[in-house]
Amino acid sequence: MSTSAHSADEASAARALPDPEDGLRLIKGSVKSQAAYTLEAPVAARKLNQNENPLDLPAELKAQILARAARLAWNRYPEFVPVPLVEGIARLWSWIPEGVLVGNGSNELIQATLTVSLDTGGVVVAPAPTFALYRLIAATLGARYVPVPLGERFAYDIDAIISTARREDAGVVVLNSPNNPTGSALPAGAVERVLEETGALVVCDEAYQEFGGPTAMELLRRSSRIVVLRTFSKAMGMAGLRFGYALAHPAVAREIAKAKLPYNVNAFTLAAATMVLEHPAPFKERTRAIIAEREKTAERLRGLPGLTVFPSAANFILIRSERLPASVLFRRLHAEHGILVRDVSSGAGLAECLRISIGTSEDMDAVIVALRQILASVVEASR
Amino acid sequence: MSTSAHSADEASAARALPDPEDGLRLIKGSVKSQAAYTLEAPVAARKLNQNENPLDLPAELKAQILARAARLAWNRYPEFVPVPLVEGIARLWSWIPEGVLVGNGSNELIQATLTVSLDTGGVVVAPAPTFALYRLIAATLGARYVPVPLGERFAYDIDAIISTARREDAGVVVLNSPNNPTGSALPAGAVERVLEETGALVVCDEAYQEFGGPTAMELLRRSSRIVVLRTFSKAMGMAGLRFGYALAHPAVAREIAKAKLPYNVNAFTLAAATMVLEHPAPFKERTRAIIAEREKTAERLRGLPGLTVFPSAANFILIRSERLPASVLFRRLHAEHGILVRDVSSGAGLAECLRISIGTSEDMDAVIVALRQILASVVEASR
Repeated sequence: MSTSAHSADEASAARALPDPEDGLRLIKGSVKSQAAYTLEAPVAARKLNQNENPLDLPAELKAQILARAARLAWNRYPEFVPVPLVEGIARLWSWIPEGVLVGNGSNELIQATLTVSLDTGGVVVAPAPTFALYRLIAATLGARYVPVPLGERFAYDIDAIISTARREDAGVVVLNSPNNPTGSALPAGAVERVLEETGALVVCDEAYQEFGGPTAMELLRRSSRIVVLRTFSKAMGMAGLRFGYALAHPAVAREIAKAKLPYNVNAFTLAAATMVLEHPAPFKERTRAIIAEREKTAERLRGLPGLTVFPSAANFILIRSERLPASVLFRRLHAEHGILVRDVSSGAGLAECLRISIGTSEDMDAVIVALRQILASVVEASR
Repeated sequence: MSTSAHSADEASAARALPDPEDGLRLIKGSVKSQAAYTLEAPVAARKLNQNENPLDLPAELKAQILARAARLAWNRYPEFVPVPLVEGIARLWSWIPEGVLVGNGSNELIQATLTVSLDTGGVVVAPAPTFALYRLIAATLGARYVPVPLGERFAYDIDAIISTARREDAGVVVLNSPNNPTGSALPAGAVERVLEETGALVVCDEAYQEFGGPTAMELLRRSSRIVVLRTFSKAMGMAGLRFGYALAHPAVAREIAKAKLPYNVNAFTLAAATMVLEHPAPFKERTRAIIAEREKTAERLRGLPGLTVFPSAANFILIRSERLPASVLFRRLHAEHGILVRDVSSGAGLAECLRISIGTSEDMDAVIVALRQILASVVEASR
């Protein structure tokens, strides 16, 4: 078939499409009213838009994983429970293997947790702004999503979260710490208070915790109402392979597992995650370097005119553009400097904000040079 | 840390566990009352329990996929929409790319479809027996699952499915054809009737369709109330890598996509699926061989005493043991002959039934020899 034949086929298929309303009326209203999660990501020399680790896995480790994958029988389902990996994660946190769930990214485990706990009309409370997926998952479940604004400079307002959860009789409170896209970490003792002062299931999404802020892991021993989520997509540099895990009381984990599909993590990713877990040293070192780079970058950003820089405990920094629209700054960074950051300015409370992932030192040098140049040109123009 | 130290840690963690009821009361009753999907799979020389393809990918293709994976940056998220793969699938079915969704196995797409269409208390109708996951997913959503018994020799009873869907005002009808674990294919025209005579969203799970029976693909042009699911786990031999896809009206696909997590198929599997799609010839040949082996095996099984053999259009055969309990036959096949099949005898209407996947010719020869020997010994013993 030639390309033109395909195009003709596609055109005729489009013409022949049946009435969409027939199918759409069977889709929940709560789903239809929700915007899809999308990402437009043009190609860029410096990709600082998804909070990825700037470095690929160490070459030797990558080669070992590929060699292991080559020996696997791809026609066979992965293990039903990947015992060595689950035991390795349990050991890392001195938790019991029956309280560990592995997922196709931690997003899958957030989804599973919300699915088993939220009926239609159930309430989930979360900070605002935060990771967009929580709201979308809640909508697919027909649940009611109640956002609680962050406070001054995007600091967590725990009193407001607690009072909202109590008022709404929330089934679930989701806490993302450090919070995406603001970088805010929960204050010490905050999760404990939410557990004590509400009756909700508390989901702590710690996707960025390696980069700063406290962990809620120790609370697993104190309450069966907490689920802690981790990912290998950030500090462990495995975004392309999708791996995350959840820790919870074994009885609760057993229920969450029912909404997690069997064989949800494929054989290749299981092999990779197992080997990465066995070789933590390079990742710890890289994480230290990213934290140092974040601190250095924040300092330099604060030295630039026309930017507000928010405190971050994550591998990204949120800034607010004071002199030109964030959308213009975003476009100029990309068009003039090949730097792709995340324009989050359409989010609640995020007017004129951009989120910049921490890349390599070279990436961050380029960001500072580019911002200085763009911001200076604005000052020139306004004189 | 030594192993004994780990064990001590684990023991102390278990002792210190908080009250499970505190967390469990936040889990939906519909979830707690449902048994988890589990699979106990002892090691066996001949693994015929999961309807896997008996052959791994051709070695050269595997090497090419690994080489492509080695060049990928694993620290980067996969493409938001894997355009070449989606377009390849669309081309295969002369459908439009906007009506194609890719998933981490087709199970994820079943789950997404049910999630966007079923509120708490919504009704899903499916045949019985069928794939256990449909019921479990419905339960996690708090939906009401209404099974409709298959008819004589597990043939589909379309009249009963239609009248049940109408009576219950079902939001969704799930049809698995060929049906797991019975092998029953839908009769020609059946899906069309369900679409015309009910108002439900009709989900056609065609995981095994390459091995026999009609496909509902052409109905996509006639109704936006149909979703057709396919997997690479069976005919394409990629069970370990997890890949499936759904075809639907673009407007409906856009809604289902909201319950499908972003980056749900990892970079490695995207590379593998893309290459497999580009090299269909070996898989077509293998599928023909499996079909021929199924027909030969069915014939030989019918020649054995004490077995009922059900007609199958899939890559497995369902049998009923008439002379000894299925559980005993299952155990003896494994213990005495190293053959692992699936004991499905606890399922509704499946008393004394075992499901045997079609493996290589050598596998099937071994199955026939083993069954002949076990069944003969039973005759001996009963004299």
